[in-house]
Amino acid sequence: MKVLSVNAGSSSLKFQLYEMPEENVLMKGVFERIGLEGSFYTLKIQGEKIKKEAPLPSHEDAVAILIQELLSNQMISSLEEIKGIGHRVVHGGSKYKGSCLITEEVLKDIEEFFPLAPLHNPANLIGIQAFMKNIPNAIEVACFDTAFHQTMEEERFLYALPYEWYEKYGVRKYGFHGMSHQYVSRRASELLDKKFSNIIVCHLGNGGSVSAVRDLKCVDTSMGFTPNAGIVMGSRSGDIDYSILPYIMKQTGKSIEELDTILNKQSGMYAISGISSDFRDIEEKIAEKDRRAIMAHYLFVNSVVSYIAKYYVELGGADAICFTAGVGENSPHVRNMIMKRLSCLGVKMDRDKNEELRFGKEGVISTPDSSITCFVIPTDEEVMIARDTYEFSK
Amino acid sequence: MKVLSVNAGSSSLKFQLYEMPEENVLMKGVFERIGLEGSFYTLKIQGEKIKKEAPLPSHEDAVAILIQELLSNQMISSLEEIKGIGHRVVHGGSKYKGSCLITEEVLKDIEEFFPLAPLHNPANLIGIQAFMKNIPNAIEVACFDTAFHQTMEEERFLYALPYEWYEKYGVRKYGFHGMSHQYVSRRASELLDKKFSNIIVCHLGNGGSVSAVRDLKCVDTSMGFTPNAGIVMGSRSGDIDYSILPYIMKQTGKSIEELDTILNKQSGMYAISGISSDFRDIEEKIAEKDRRAIMAHYLFVNSVVSYIAKYYVELGGADAICFTAGVGENSPHVRNMIMKRLSCLGVKMDRDKNEELRFGKEGVISTPDSSITCFVIPTDEEVMIARDTYEFSK
Repeated sequence: MKVLSVNAGSSSLKFQLYEMPEENVLMKGVFERIGLEGSFYTLKIQGEKIKKEAPLPSHEDAVAILIQELLSNQMISSLEEIKGIGHRVVHGGSKYKGSCLITEEVLKDIEEFFPLAPLHNPANLIGIQAFMKNIPNAIEVACFDTAFHQTMEEERFLYALPYEWYEKYGVRKYGFHGMSHQYVSRRASELLDKKFSNIIVCHLGNGGSVSAVRDLKCVDTSMGFTPNAGIVMGSRSGDIDYSILPYIMKQTGKSIEELDTILNKQSGMYAISGISSDFRDIEEKIAEKDRRAIMAHYLFVNSVVSYIAKYYVELGGADAICFTAGVGENSPHVRNMIMKRLSCLGVKMDRDKNEELRFGKEGVISTPDSSITCFVIPTDEEVMIARDTYEFSK
Repeated sequence: MKVLSVNAGSSSLKFQLYEMPEENVLMKGVFERIGLEGSFYTLKIQGEKIKKEAPLPSHEDAVAILIQELLSNQMISSLEEIKGIGHRVVHGGSKYKGSCLITEEVLKDIEEFFPLAPLHNPANLIGIQAFMKNIPNAIEVACFDTAFHQTMEEERFLYALPYEWYEKYGVRKYGFHGMSHQYVSRRASELLDKKFSNIIVCHLGNGGSVSAVRDLKCVDTSMGFTPNAGIVMGSRSGDIDYSILPYIMKQTGKSIEELDTILNKQSGMYAISGISSDFRDIEEKIAEKDRRAIMAHYLFVNSVVSYIAKYYVELGGADAICFTAGVGENSPHVRNMIMKRLSCLGVKMDRDKNEELRFGKEGVISTPDSSITCFVIPTDEEVMIARDTYEFSK
């Protein structure tokens, strides 16, 4: 059975076509600069990459081209072959604790959550609607970034803020990157061969979050009401003293909206390093002993270690710590810094294994006598979407 | 030698008269509602309490009355006997790493830091000036709440925010409650009889902070740019996702100033319990199984435990955890909740000792085989001020 896994952004649309339940990726690609000048798309079919320029006024146009490409590349012989389409949706509020078939009610809810995810949910909805129109016979499934974290207890997701803000405006911790935390914690549990386990997942990419997972259920996570909270990120500050906002507004005359942009796009590693939000650029400068690049790395590592420490105690000990996403999968340097700081918990690194596991390789990077098994587990949010979609399609 | 330890608020003035170096408190008291209707003061002399009503248009009037009372109660025979006056000053910026003699430059600096501590520094300055005018022959010493924390490394005090905000506007972590953290960590080090030690101090009062102290120097602390960050407090939220501010402003139309007030005065334990910012009131309601009172306690305890976990790893292990201030000294219930959650670090509580140590008693509340020694150490910020003042006076 063929299933599409889709991730729609405001000007982009990523997809993977799966053969399920085998989980074979038949074709994948991304449409970029939708609605903008210079739009194009790239496809990957059996290892071969294709890039084409094309006018893409809307997401619907992208979907129309996608269908043409699926047919002309003989991925499908007719549209009916696509049984299910799974969509990544950033915000599912408190309501959605798992993926679900998209109904009128679900569409309304995704729209209702716009204020909670003003950049993402509208784009996700546009993506869904474009597929509904172009491939009407397939079932559509919403896979929420927040769903996995909805097992958090009230004492973990509440802020010490006016209770009315929670009841009336939904101010609470939601957590994000749910598909990734779920995929990685499940995989770690398989590798540990232990169903009941305490797992800490470090999703370290340009955005990043850490989560505490007990017996495959999320107990706590570092992102909060929005994806701006938690660890230091590429261009996001992560946790700060909120009182900096009124202070800086007073000092600079900037509006709250301007600050919000700065805190999202010009903070984090970018601000401290003064170089880039990309960890690879920063690592290059560290090699040249650039002071602020080194400082950016310290701040990042400290923030990740803080959350690991917090979750270690919150879980009452941990069986595994997992590194995933761009930086987690590919930076032995960062993993080394993090694990060294955890030596007081009995964590011991296998130096060779740590150096070896990069570029999509999975495995253990701790020594056999380490108190906690440390894994590198390349994440796969797309296959999680495909799996959930398949479940609803079969 | 006689020395005064002073803490001036915007409408209050607390003092203690010490005989130094014996550290005997000869007299103490507080002037309240200065500049307001219904002003009064209370004195405590050799266990006896006196309360008197008196018009107190300004801090200078309070100081004038204080001098009369010192003379009429024969605490001093002339003003010349008071050799030094030590003032608690909330904010000393990055500049003041310890207490110092007050010079013209120091007065200017305290004023320069007004934007960093708009509620406290102006009041502190008024207090200093009132004493300088009324007791001109004594030396005046400034004891900063931030000073003890100035040993933090850059990687601990920087936020992942535009670097310019740090350089130009002083946006960084400062830390507060310094006199208390210093007093308690020193005392713990004495009790441990170990000069080189890793100590975690939990100052849990209506305001609260946790600090990590290595070899008597502060390594990290939970309060941040302002005293609003860190653990959940009586009426302050502690750490939150800052993005809640722009969201709530949009949803409610409230200004940033209004939010600031709510986050300072109507959040924390008060907001979650819906009862009070006073832990004693909340504990009463917990006895009645009030759901939100219980939740408030959970949030508070979770936030303290998070910082202990973080600092345990940051220090690479801990020799001692100390509880101090109102709640830390007087709530076996809270200490019990915190220590239970630390059992995965090998912390073991002595139930009887924990119940016993209240109302100013000092001692150990962990068992001999606990991995970390847990102390209750009643704080004494006043004696720290007196000691520093004496050092400059002798």
